[in-house]
Amino acid sequence: MSDMPQKSTNVVWHSATVTRERRAELNKHQSKVLWFTGLSGAGKSTLAHAVEEELYRRGFRTFVLDGDNVRHGLCADLGFSDRDRVENIRRIGEVSKLFVEAGVLVLTAFISPFRDDRMKVRTLLSSDDFLEIYCKCPLDVCEERDVKGLYKRARAGEIKGFTGISSPYEEPVDPELTIDTSSMTLDDSVQAVLELLLKRGVYSES
Amino acid sequence: MSDMPQKSTNVVWHSATVTRERRAELNKHQSKVLWFTGLSGAGKSTLAHAVEEELYRRGFRTFVLDGDNVRHGLCADLGFSDRDRVENIRRIGEVSKLFVEAGVLVLTAFISPFRDDRMKVRTLLSSDDFLEIYCKCPLDVCEERDVKGLYKRARAGEIKGFTGISSPYEEPVDPELTIDTSSMTLDDSVQAVLELLLKRGVYSES
Repeated sequence: MSDMPQKSTNVVWHSATVTRERRAELNKHQSKVLWFTGLSGAGKSTLAHAVEEELYRRGFRTFVLDGDNVRHGLCADLGFSDRDRVENIRRIGEVSKLFVEAGVLVLTAFISPFRDDRMKVRTLLSSDDFLEIYCKCPLDVCEERDVKGLYKRARAGEIKGFTGISSPYEEPVDPELTIDTSSMTLDDSVQAVLELLLKRGVYSES
Repeated sequence: MSDMPQKSTNVVWHSATVTRERRAELNKHQSKVLWFTGLSGAGKSTLAHAVEEELYRRGFRTFVLDGDNVRHGLCADLGFSDRDRVENIRRIGEVSKLFVEAGVLVLTAFISPFRDDRMKVRTLLSSDDFLEIYCKCPLDVCEERDVKGLYKRARAGEIKGFTGISSPYEEPVDPELTIDTSSMTLDDSVQAVLELLLKRGVYSES
């Protein structure tokens, strides 16, 4: 049969019929990107995962993108030069866009120290889809926590261009939400994020 | 308050608690990659979207990755040199892996003409997560369809290295499924894919 193309039933071009809107209908929530930004140790990943856990309990479809699952995979070919950092954030932005299209609420947890890079991601998505959440925490608190021992190594000169030590962190000018992780409890921080989602129509209480 | 770190409630490191297993529980299906491969015009995208529509009706979480949403975004920096083609498939593999981790059943529709590249993606994922589906269709049928007018341009020498014309297509040796799109109806093709998913435990009939 394979050499006898007497039937060509597949000729008709089928485009995507499962749209973002239909996914939202199935999921009972909208998809957005929650872009957590802040110093290393400010609690971005902690907060992102805590929000995800709470959203899972409510039956949401979510995904956390962070260094753990991106740096060793999609961006394994990239280093930490200025150029590679820009490309790293660009790819994360593009992947986030695919997840949003797939109906998934994405939570990203990257230092993403430069305003310009974050703005590029905001522009890449529709602006409405990008919710910037600033995990604000004084450098000395982050350094005291030093969960991964990176500050010690940066101070010893073993890590070059380390944000907060030898490379700048540019604070968000007008983020959708600021969480002071040095003073707010994790539970309150999670609640603040949920309120933002509610306010932005990601879900409704009904 | 922000300068007075008297409370540090977020110090505890929270790792991911929403695992792939819990996502599968919520979704009521497993996540895999359905990797459709075949000549341009063989019906990969058509079949992928038709399968997605059928799965949506069953409440599945799915996503189709194809040239439309990848080439202009995540891989916009890549051309069609051998090196760029390899990197293109690598990134698609890595993104597929993230979606699988997120509990989403991914359907990819790329010519992906080289065995070695497809094998790399299979290796990247756990082998069990990669289901290769060969959309088999004679070149002359694909060329007659020429939905996008690419074969005409390739024959005219306007596109270099075009698969089937001026660049080889390496058939899968042992794909999980072969669909002869020149003889099977689209409905039957969709059914064959669903049977594969059932057989591989992606969902159960109950």
